[in-house]
Amino acid sequence: MPIDAPAAKRDATAGYGARVVLTDHGERAREEVAAAKAREIAETEGLALLHPFDDPEIVAGQAGAGLEALDQLAAKNASADLLFCSVGGGGLIGGVSLAFHYLSPATEIIGVEPEGFNGMGSSLAHGSIETMPIGPKSICDGLMSRRPGDAPFAAVKTAGVRGVTVDDSSVRRAMRIAFERMKLVLEPSGAASLAALLGGKVDVKDKTVLVVATGGNVSLADFMAHMNHA
Amino acid sequence: MPIDAPAAKRDATAGYGARVVLTDHGERAREEVAAAKAREIAETEGLALLHPFDDPEIVAGQAGAGLEALDQLAAKNASADLLFCSVGGGGLIGGVSLAFHYLSPATEIIGVEPEGFNGMGSSLAHGSIETMPIGPKSICDGLMSRRPGDAPFAAVKTAGVRGVTVDDSSVRRAMRIAFERMKLVLEPSGAASLAALLGGKVDVKDKTVLVVATGGNVSLADFMAHMNHA
Repeated sequence: MPIDAPAAKRDATAGYGARVVLTDHGERAREEVAAAKAREIAETEGLALLHPFDDPEIVAGQAGAGLEALDQLAAKNASADLLFCSVGGGGLIGGVSLAFHYLSPATEIIGVEPEGFNGMGSSLAHGSIETMPIGPKSICDGLMSRRPGDAPFAAVKTAGVRGVTVDDSSVRRAMRIAFERMKLVLEPSGAASLAALLGGKVDVKDKTVLVVATGGNVSLADFMAHMNHA
Repeated sequence: MPIDAPAAKRDATAGYGARVVLTDHGERAREEVAAAKAREIAETEGLALLHPFDDPEIVAGQAGAGLEALDQLAAKNASADLLFCSVGGGGLIGGVSLAFHYLSPATEIIGVEPEGFNGMGSSLAHGSIETMPIGPKSICDGLMSRRPGDAPFAAVKTAGVRGVTVDDSSVRRAMRIAFERMKLVLEPSGAASLAALLGGKVDVKDKTVLVVATGGNVSLADFMAHMNHA
Protein backbone atom coordinates (compact mmCIF):
# COMPACT_ATOMS: atom_id res chain seq x y z
CA MET A 1 0.00 0.00 0.00
CA PRO A 2 1.15 3.56 -0.60
CA ILE A 3 2.45 5.08 2.62
CA ASP A 4 -0.39 7.62 2.58
CA ALA A 5 -3.17 5.00 2.48
CA PRO A 6 -5.64 5.74 5.31
CA ALA A 7 -4.85 4.06 8.61
CA ALA A 8 -8.39 2.62 8.64
CA LYS A 9 -7.65 0.75 5.41
CA ARG A 10 -4.27 -0.50 6.63
CA ASP A 11 -5.66 -1.63 9.97
CA ALA A 12 -8.67 -3.38 8.47
CA THR A 13 -6.47 -5.20 5.96
CA ALA A 14 -4.06 -6.30 8.68
CA GLY A 15 -7.06 -7.27 10.80
CA TYR A 16 -8.10 -9.77 8.13
CA GLY A 17 -4.69 -11.42 8.46
CA ALA A 18 -2.71 -9.69 5.70
CA ARG A 19 0.91 -8.66 5.85
CA VAL A 20 0.84 -4.97 4.88
CA VAL A 21 3.93 -3.58 3.12
CA LEU A 22 4.03 0.22 2.79
CA THR A 23 5.78 1.97 -0.10
CA ASP A 24 7.08 5.52 0.02
CA HIS A 25 6.63 7.04 -3.46
CA GLY A 26 8.06 10.48 -2.78
CA GLU A 27 7.57 12.47 -5.98
CA ARG A 28 6.96 9.37 -8.09
CA ALA A 29 3.54 7.95 -9.03
CA ARG A 30 1.94 6.56 -5.93
CA GLU A 31 0.31 3.50 -7.38
CA GLU A 32 3.14 2.53 -9.71
CA VAL A 33 5.65 2.43 -6.87
CA ALA A 34 3.32 0.15 -4.89
CA ALA A 35 2.77 -2.06 -7.94
CA ALA A 36 6.51 -2.40 -8.54
CA LYS A 37 7.03 -3.45 -4.92
CA ALA A 38 4.24 -6.01 -5.23
CA ARG A 39 5.88 -7.48 -8.36
CA GLU A 40 9.22 -7.63 -6.56
CA ILE A 41 7.74 -9.44 -3.55
CA ALA A 42 5.86 -11.86 -5.79
CA GLU A 43 9.05 -12.72 -7.69
CA THR A 44 11.31 -12.97 -4.64
CA GLU A 45 8.93 -15.12 -2.65
CA GLY A 46 7.42 -17.12 -5.51
CA LEU A 47 3.89 -15.77 -4.95
CA ALA A 48 1.05 -15.18 -7.39
CA LEU A 49 0.35 -11.52 -8.10
CA LEU A 50 -3.31 -10.49 -8.22
CA HIS A 51 -3.58 -7.09 -9.86
CA PRO A 52 -6.15 -4.88 -8.10
CA PHE A 53 -7.90 -4.04 -11.37
CA ASP A 54 -6.00 -4.76 -14.59
CA ASP A 55 -6.98 -8.36 -15.22
CA PRO A 56 -9.95 -9.61 -17.28
CA GLU A 57 -10.91 -12.00 -14.49
CA ILE A 58 -10.91 -9.21 -11.89
CA VAL A 59 -13.18 -7.20 -14.20
CA ALA A 60 -15.44 -10.24 -14.65
CA GLY A 61 -15.59 -10.71 -10.89
CA GLN A 62 -16.58 -7.08 -10.34
CA ALA A 63 -19.46 -7.64 -12.74
CA GLY A 64 -21.04 -9.46 -9.80
CA ALA A 65 -21.83 -6.09 -8.22
CA GLY A 66 -23.71 -5.18 -11.40
CA LEU A 67 -25.60 -8.48 -11.38
CA GLU A 68 -26.61 -7.95 -7.75
CA ALA A 69 -27.86 -4.47 -8.55
CA LEU A 70 -29.83 -5.85 -11.50
CA ASP A 71 -31.39 -8.48 -9.22
CA GLN A 72 -32.38 -5.79 -6.72
CA LEU A 73 -33.89 -3.64 -9.47
CA ALA A 74 -35.80 -6.64 -10.86
CA ALA A 75 -37.19 -7.39 -7.39
CA LYS A 76 -38.73 -3.91 -7.45
CA ASN A 77 -39.90 -4.26 -11.06
CA ALA A 78 -37.64 -1.33 -11.85
CA SER A 79 -34.84 -0.57 -14.26
CA ALA A 80 -32.17 2.13 -14.08
CA ASP A 81 -32.10 4.97 -16.60
CA LEU A 82 -28.74 6.07 -15.23
CA LEU A 83 -25.93 4.44 -13.29
CA PHE A 84 -23.15 6.33 -11.47
CA CYS A 85 -20.02 4.38 -10.54
CA SER A 86 -16.65 5.62 -9.30
CA VAL A 87 -13.47 4.88 -11.27
CA GLY A 88 -9.97 4.29 -9.93
CA GLY A 89 -8.10 1.84 -12.13
CA GLY A 90 -11.47 0.88 -13.57
CA GLY A 91 -11.95 -2.68 -12.37
CA LEU A 92 -15.29 -2.07 -10.70
CA ILE A 93 -16.83 0.05 -13.44
CA GLY A 94 -15.42 -2.34 -16.04
CA GLY A 95 -17.40 -5.24 -14.64
CA VAL A 96 -20.48 -3.29 -13.64
CA SER A 97 -20.73 -1.51 -16.99
CA LEU A 98 -20.40 -4.76 -18.95
CA ALA A 99 -23.15 -6.39 -16.86
CA PHE A 100 -25.49 -3.49 -17.63
CA HIS A 101 -24.39 -3.25 -21.26
CA TYR A 102 -25.52 -6.81 -21.92
CA LEU A 103 -28.48 -7.11 -19.53
CA SER A 104 -29.84 -3.55 -19.33
CA PRO A 105 -28.62 -1.83 -22.49
CA ALA A 106 -30.88 1.21 -22.07
CA THR A 107 -29.05 2.23 -18.88
CA GLU A 108 -26.68 5.15 -19.40
CA ILE A 109 -23.47 4.62 -17.41
CA ILE A 110 -21.50 7.48 -15.86
CA GLY A 111 -17.93 6.90 -14.69
CA VAL A 112 -16.94 9.27 -11.88
CA GLU A 113 -13.33 10.31 -11.24
CA PRO A 114 -11.72 12.91 -8.98
CA GLU A 115 -10.48 16.04 -10.75
CA GLY A 116 -6.92 15.48 -11.95
CA PHE A 117 -7.32 11.69 -11.94
CA ASN A 118 -9.73 11.42 -14.86
CA GLY A 119 -7.59 9.01 -16.84
CA MET A 120 -10.59 6.90 -17.80
CA GLY A 121 -12.65 9.88 -18.98
CA SER A 122 -9.72 11.23 -20.97
CA SER A 123 -8.96 7.84 -22.46
CA LEU A 124 -12.58 7.40 -23.50
CA ALA A 125 -12.60 10.86 -25.06
CA HIS A 126 -9.43 10.10 -27.02
CA GLY A 127 -10.23 6.50 -27.87
CA SER A 128 -7.01 5.17 -26.40
CA ILE A 129 -5.41 4.99 -22.98
CA GLU A 130 -4.06 8.27 -21.62
CA THR A 131 -1.80 8.71 -18.61
CA MET A 132 -2.47 11.69 -16.39
CA PRO A 133 0.35 13.85 -15.02
CA ILE A 134 1.72 13.44 -11.50
CA GLY A 135 0.82 16.27 -9.18
CA PRO A 136 -2.87 16.62 -8.31
CA LYS A 137 -4.17 15.73 -4.85
CA SER A 138 -7.56 14.29 -3.93
CA ILE A 139 -9.26 13.10 -0.77
CA CYS A 140 -10.42 10.06 -2.81
CA ASP A 141 -7.34 7.96 -2.09
CA GLY A 142 -8.86 4.85 -3.66
CA LEU A 143 -9.40 6.64 -7.00
CA MET A 144 -5.97 8.23 -7.47
CA SER A 145 -5.02 6.27 -10.59
CA ARG A 146 -3.02 7.96 -13.34
CA ARG A 147 -4.23 5.60 -16.07
CA PRO A 148 -6.97 3.03 -16.44
CA GLY A 149 -6.00 -0.60 -16.78
CA ASP A 150 -6.06 -2.19 -20.24
CA ALA A 151 -8.72 -4.75 -19.35
CA PRO A 152 -11.02 -2.20 -17.63
CA PHE A 153 -10.59 0.28 -20.49
CA ALA A 154 -11.60 -2.35 -23.05
CA ALA A 155 -14.71 -3.20 -20.98
CA VAL A 156 -15.73 0.42 -20.39
CA LYS A 157 -15.23 1.32 -24.07
CA THR A 158 -17.42 -1.61 -25.10
CA ALA A 159 -20.12 -0.52 -22.65
CA GLY A 160 -20.10 3.11 -23.82
CA VAL A 161 -19.40 4.77 -20.48
CA ARG A 162 -19.34 8.58 -20.15
CA GLY A 163 -16.84 10.20 -17.75
CA VAL A 164 -17.43 13.06 -15.30
CA THR A 165 -15.25 14.50 -12.53
CA VAL A 166 -15.91 15.62 -8.95
CA ASP A 167 -13.97 17.90 -6.61
CA ASP A 168 -13.16 17.35 -2.93
CA SER A 169 -15.83 19.67 -1.59
CA SER A 170 -18.61 17.95 -3.52
CA VAL A 171 -17.34 14.60 -2.21
CA ARG A 172 -17.45 15.87 1.39
CA ARG A 173 -21.02 17.10 0.85
CA ALA A 174 -21.99 13.68 -0.49
CA MET A 175 -20.43 12.01 2.57
CA ARG A 176 -22.51 14.28 4.78
CA ILE A 177 -25.74 13.55 2.92
CA ALA A 178 -25.08 9.81 3.00
CA PHE A 179 -24.56 10.11 6.77
CA GLU A 180 -27.56 12.32 7.51
CA ARG A 181 -30.17 10.98 5.09
CA MET A 182 -29.06 7.44 4.23
CA LYS A 183 -27.38 6.52 7.53
CA LEU A 184 -24.39 5.21 5.60
CA VAL A 185 -20.71 5.76 6.32
CA LEU A 186 -18.88 6.34 3.03
CA GLU A 187 -15.19 6.99 2.56
CA PRO A 188 -14.37 9.77 0.06
CA SER A 189 -13.75 7.32 -2.79
CA GLY A 190 -17.05 5.61 -2.01
CA ALA A 191 -18.96 8.90 -2.07
CA ALA A 192 -17.60 10.18 -5.41
CA SER A 193 -20.44 8.59 -7.40
CA LEU A 194 -23.06 10.18 -5.12
CA ALA A 195 -21.21 13.52 -5.40
CA ALA A 196 -21.55 13.38 -9.18
CA LEU A 197 -25.27 12.73 -8.88
CA LEU A 198 -25.75 15.60 -6.41
CA GLY A 199 -23.45 17.94 -8.32
CA GLY A 200 -25.98 18.41 -11.09
CA LYS A 201 -23.60 17.79 -14.00
CA VAL A 202 -25.91 15.06 -15.32
CA ASP A 203 -29.63 15.62 -15.84
CA VAL A 204 -31.42 13.16 -13.57
CA LYS A 205 -34.89 14.70 -13.52
CA ASP A 206 -37.64 12.06 -13.58
CA LYS A 207 -35.05 9.33 -14.04
CA THR A 208 -34.45 6.17 -12.07
CA VAL A 209 -30.85 6.41 -10.92
CA LEU A 210 -28.57 3.73 -9.51
CA VAL A 211 -25.53 4.88 -7.53
CA VAL A 212 -22.78 2.40 -6.73
CA ALA A 213 -21.48 3.89 -3.48
CA THR A 214 -18.77 1.51 -2.44
CA GLY A 215 -16.32 1.78 0.40
CA GLY A 216 -16.41 2.90 4.00
CA ASN A 217 -12.70 2.58 4.84
CA VAL A 218 -12.51 5.79 6.78
CA SER A 219 -11.54 6.18 10.41
CA LEU A 220 -13.87 8.06 12.72
CA ALA A 221 -11.17 10.75 13.16
CA ASP A 222 -10.73 11.24 9.41
CA PHE A 223 -14.48 11.26 8.87
CA MET A 224 -14.94 13.94 11.50
CA ALA A 225 -12.11 15.99 9.99
CA HIS A 226 -13.80 15.81 6.58
CA MET A 227 -17.13 16.82 8.10
CA ASN A 228 -15.53 19.82 9.77
CA HIS A 229 -14.69 21.01 6.26
CA ALA A 230 -18.05 20.10 4.69
CA MET B 1 -42.70 15.68 20.77
CA PRO B 2 -40.95 16.33 24.07
CA ILE B 3 -39.00 19.58 23.92
CA ASP B 4 -35.75 17.67 24.34
CA ALA B 5 -36.28 15.42 21.31
CA PRO B 6 -33.20 15.62 19.06
CA ALA B 7 -33.30 18.37 16.45
CA ALA B 8 -32.53 15.75 13.77
CA LYS B 9 -35.76 13.92 14.65
CA ARG B 10 -37.83 17.12 14.71
CA ASP B 11 -36.41 18.34 11.42
CA ALA B 12 -36.83 15.01 9.65
CA THR B 13 -40.44 14.76 10.83
CA ALA B 14 -41.20 18.30 9.71
CA GLY B 15 -39.42 17.52 6.45
CA TYR B 16 -41.93 14.78 5.74
CA GLY B 17 -44.71 17.36 6.05
CA ALA B 18 -45.74 16.99 9.70
CA ARG B 19 -46.75 19.80 12.03
CA VAL B 20 -44.47 19.32 15.05
CA VAL B 21 -45.84 20.43 18.44
CA LEU B 22 -43.28 20.52 21.26
CA THR B 23 -44.22 19.91 24.90
CA ASP B 24 -42.23 21.17 27.87
CA HIS B 25 -42.50 18.55 30.63
CA GLY B 26 -40.39 20.28 33.28
CA GLU B 27 -40.21 17.86 36.22
CA ARG B 28 -43.12 15.77 34.98
CA ALA B 29 -42.87 12.55 32.94
CA ARG B 30 -41.62 13.43 29.49
CA GLU B 31 -43.69 11.05 27.45
CA GLU B 32 -46.92 11.43 29.42
CA VAL B 33 -46.94 15.19 28.93
CA ALA B 34 -46.51 14.72 25.19
CA ALA B 35 -49.26 12.08 25.11
CA ALA B 36 -51.68 14.34 27.00
CA LYS B 37 -51.02 17.13 24.49
CA ALA B 38 -51.64 14.74 21.60
CA ARG B 39 -54.98 13.68 23.12
CA GLU B 40 -55.93 17.33 23.61
CA ILE B 41 -55.12 18.22 19.98
CA ALA B 42 -56.98 15.16 18.68
CA GLU B 43 -60.09 16.11 20.69
CA THR B 44 -59.99 19.83 19.87
CA GLU B 45 -59.43 19.33 16.16
CA GLY B 46 -61.45 16.14 15.69
CA LEU B 47 -58.43 14.08 14.63
CA ALA B 48 -57.72 10.37 15.05
CA LEU B 49 -54.99 9.64 17.61
CA LEU B 50 -52.47 6.98 16.65
CA HIS B 51 -50.60 5.86 19.76
CA PRO B 52 -46.89 5.35 19.06
CA PHE B 53 -46.89 1.89 20.63
CA ASP B 54 -49.85 1.01 22.85
CA ASP B 55 -52.29 -0.35 20.28
CA PRO B 56 -52.64 -4.00 19.17
CA GLU B 57 -52.61 -2.92 15.54
CA ILE B 58 -49.37 -0.98 15.98
CA VAL B 59 -47.83 -4.06 17.58
CA ALA B 60 -49.12 -6.20 14.69
CA GLY B 61 -47.64 -3.76 12.19
CA GLN B 62 -44.25 -3.86 13.89
CA ALA B 63 -44.31 -7.64 13.50
CA GLY B 64 -43.48 -6.87 9.87
CA ALA B 65 -39.90 -6.14 10.92
CA GLY B 66 -39.75 -9.63 12.42
CA LEU B 67 -41.20 -11.19 9.27
CA GLU B 68 -38.62 -9.38 7.11
CA ALA B 69 -35.81 -10.62 9.36
CA LEU B 70 -37.20 -14.16 9.14
CA ASP B 71 -37.26 -13.88 5.33
CA GLN B 72 -33.64 -12.72 5.31
CA LEU B 73 -32.58 -15.55 7.60
CA ALA B 74 -34.46 -18.10 5.43
CA ALA B 75 -32.67 -16.75 2.32
CA LYS B 76 -29.39 -17.69 4.02
CA ASN B 77 -30.74 -21.06 5.25
CA ALA B 78 -30.12 -19.76 8.75
CA SER B 79 -32.09 -19.33 11.93
CA ALA B 80 -31.41 -17.12 14.92
CA ASP B 81 -30.54 -18.62 18.31
CA LEU B 82 -30.79 -15.19 19.89
CA LEU B 83 -32.51 -11.92 19.01
CA PHE B 84 -31.69 -8.53 20.59
CA CYS B 85 -34.25 -5.76 20.23
CA SER B 86 -34.48 -2.39 21.96
CA VAL B 87 -37.53 -1.48 24.06
CA GLY B 88 -39.12 1.92 24.56
CA GLY B 89 -42.87 1.60 24.98
CA GLY B 90 -42.53 -1.89 23.54
CA GLY B 91 -44.33 -1.63 20.21
CA LEU B 92 -41.42 -2.86 18.12
CA ILE B 93 -40.36 -5.71 20.37
CA GLY B 94 -44.02 -6.66 20.88
CA GLY B 95 -44.49 -7.29 17.17
CA VAL B 96 -41.04 -8.71 16.49
CA SER B 97 -41.17 -11.10 19.45
CA LEU B 98 -44.62 -12.40 18.49
CA ALA B 99 -43.45 -13.04 14.91
CA PHE B 100 -40.50 -15.08 16.22
CA HIS B 101 -42.58 -16.76 18.93
CA TYR B 102 -44.89 -18.26 16.34
CA LEU B 103 -42.51 -18.78 13.40
CA SER B 104 -39.14 -19.40 15.07
CA PRO B 105 -39.98 -20.59 18.60
CA ALA B 106 -36.43 -21.74 19.38
CA THR B 107 -35.12 -18.15 19.15
CA GLU B 108 -34.45 -16.62 22.57
CA ILE B 109 -35.52 -12.96 22.61
CA ILE B 110 -33.71 -10.29 24.63
CA GLY B 111 -35.39 -6.95 25.25
CA VAL B 112 -32.88 -4.13 25.76
CA GLU B 113 -33.65 -1.03 27.82
CA PRO B 114 -31.53 1.86 29.08
CA GLU B 115 -30.70 1.75 32.78
CA GLY B 116 -33.45 3.47 34.75
CA PHE B 117 -36.01 2.93 31.99
CA ASN B 118 -36.34 -0.84 32.30
CA GLY B 119 -40.09 -0.82 32.76
CA MET B 120 -40.55 -3.79 30.44
CA GLY B 121 -37.88 -5.89 32.16
CA SER B 122 -39.31 -5.04 35.59
CA SER B 123 -42.84 -5.74 34.45
CA LEU B 124 -41.81 -9.11 33.02
CA ALA B 125 -40.00 -9.97 36.26
CA HIS B 126 -43.06 -9.07 38.32
CA GLY B 127 -45.68 -10.49 35.98
CA SER B 128 -47.59 -7.22 35.76
CA ILE B 129 -46.95 -3.73 34.48
CA GLU B 130 -44.61 -1.59 36.60
CA THR B 131 -44.03 2.13 36.26
CA MET B 132 -40.49 3.39 36.75
CA PRO B 133 -39.73 6.50 38.81
CA ILE B 134 -39.09 9.89 37.22
CA GLY B 135 -35.48 11.00 37.40
CA PRO B 136 -32.98 8.96 35.41
CA LYS B 137 -31.38 10.34 32.26
CA SER B 138 -30.30 8.44 29.17
CA ILE B 139 -28.83 9.31 25.78
CA CYS B 140 -31.38 6.87 24.30
CA ASP B 141 -34.15 9.46 23.91
CA GLY B 142 -36.37 7.07 21.97
CA LEU B 143 -36.34 4.50 24.78
CA MET B 144 -37.14 6.77 27.75
CA SER B 145 -40.48 5.17 28.60
CA ARG B 146 -41.53 4.85 32.22
CA ARG B 147 -43.88 1.94 31.58
CA PRO B 148 -44.55 -0.48 28.74
CA GLY B 149 -47.86 -0.24 26.91
CA ASP B 150 -50.60 -2.75 27.72
CA ALA B 151 -50.68 -4.23 24.22
CA PRO B 152 -46.87 -4.56 23.92
CA PHE B 153 -46.61 -6.05 27.41
CA ALA B 154 -49.20 -8.71 26.57
CA ALA B 155 -47.28 -9.58 23.38
CA VAL B 156 -43.86 -9.69 25.03
CA LYS B 157 -45.18 -11.79 27.94
CA THR B 158 -46.66 -14.28 25.47
CA ALA B 159 -43.37 -14.48 23.59
CA GLY B 160 -41.29 -15.04 26.75
CA VAL B 161 -38.89 -12.13 26.34
CA ARG B 162 -35.99 -11.61 28.78
CA GLY B 163 -34.97 -8.06 29.73
CA VAL B 164 -31.46 -6.60 30.04
CA THR B 165 -30.22 -3.02 30.50
CA VAL B 166 -27.42 -0.98 28.94
CA ASP B 167 -25.66 2.19 30.12
CA ASP B 168 -24.75 5.27 28.08
CA SER B 169 -21.09 4.41 27.65
CA SER B 170 -21.85 0.94 26.25
CA VAL B 171 -24.31 2.56 23.82
CA ARG B 172 -21.66 5.05 22.63
CA ARG B 173 -19.21 2.18 22.10
CA ALA B 174 -21.82 0.32 20.05
CA MET B 175 -22.40 3.46 17.92
CA ARG B 176 -18.66 3.62 17.27
CA ILE B 177 -18.43 -0.05 16.30
CA ALA B 178 -21.45 0.24 14.00
CA PHE B 179 -19.75 3.23 12.35
CA GLU B 180 -16.28 1.69 12.05
CA ARG B 181 -17.05 -1.93 11.27
CA MET B 182 -20.58 -1.95 9.82
CA LYS B 183 -20.55 1.49 8.14
CA LEU B 184 -23.92 2.23 9.73
CA VAL B 185 -25.05 5.43 11.42
CA LEU B 186 -27.09 4.53 14.51
CA GLU B 187 -28.72 6.91 16.95
CA PRO B 188 -28.27 5.97 20.63
CA SER B 189 -31.69 4.29 20.84
CA GLY B 190 -30.89 2.35 17.68
CA ALA B 191 -27.57 1.13 19.07
CA ALA B 192 -28.89 -0.12 22.44
CA SER B 193 -29.52 -3.64 21.13
CA LEU B 194 -25.99 -3.86 19.73
CA ALA B 195 -24.63 -2.49 23.03
CA ALA B 196 -26.31 -5.34 24.89
CA LEU B 197 -24.77 -7.88 22.53
CA LEU B 198 -21.29 -6.36 22.88
CA GLY B 199 -21.64 -5.86 26.63
CA GLY B 200 -21.29 -9.56 27.31
CA LYS B 201 -24.30 -9.88 29.63
CA VAL B 202 -25.73 -12.61 27.40
CA ASP B 203 -23.68 -15.63 26.33
CA VAL B 204 -23.52 -15.54 22.54
CA LYS B 205 -20.61 -17.91 21.93
CA ASP B 206 -21.16 -20.08 18.85
CA LYS B 207 -24.68 -18.72 18.47
CA THR B 208 -26.37 -17.12 15.48
CA VAL B 209 -27.48 -13.73 16.71
CA LEU B 210 -29.93 -11.27 15.17
CA VAL B 211 -29.70 -7.65 16.28
CA VAL B 212 -32.53 -5.26 15.45
CA ALA B 213 -30.58 -1.99 15.26
CA THR B 214 -33.20 0.53 14.31
CA GLY B 215 -32.91 4.26 14.08
CA GLY B 216 -30.38 6.76 12.79
CA ASN B 217 -32.11 10.00 13.84
CA VAL B 218 -28.96 11.67 15.02
CA SER B 219 -27.48 14.89 13.72
CA LEU B 220 -23.88 14.92 12.62
CA ALA B 221 -23.08 17.35 15.48
CA ASP B 222 -24.71 15.12 18.12
CA PHE B 223 -23.04 12.04 16.67
CA MET B 224 -19.63 13.72 16.83
CA ALA B 225 -20.28 14.84 20.41
CA HIS B 226 -21.14 11.27 21.40
CA MET B 227 -18.01 9.96 19.69
CA ASN B 228 -15.86 12.46 21.55
CA HIS B 229 -17.06 10.73 24.73
CA ALA B 230 -16.74 7.17 23.40
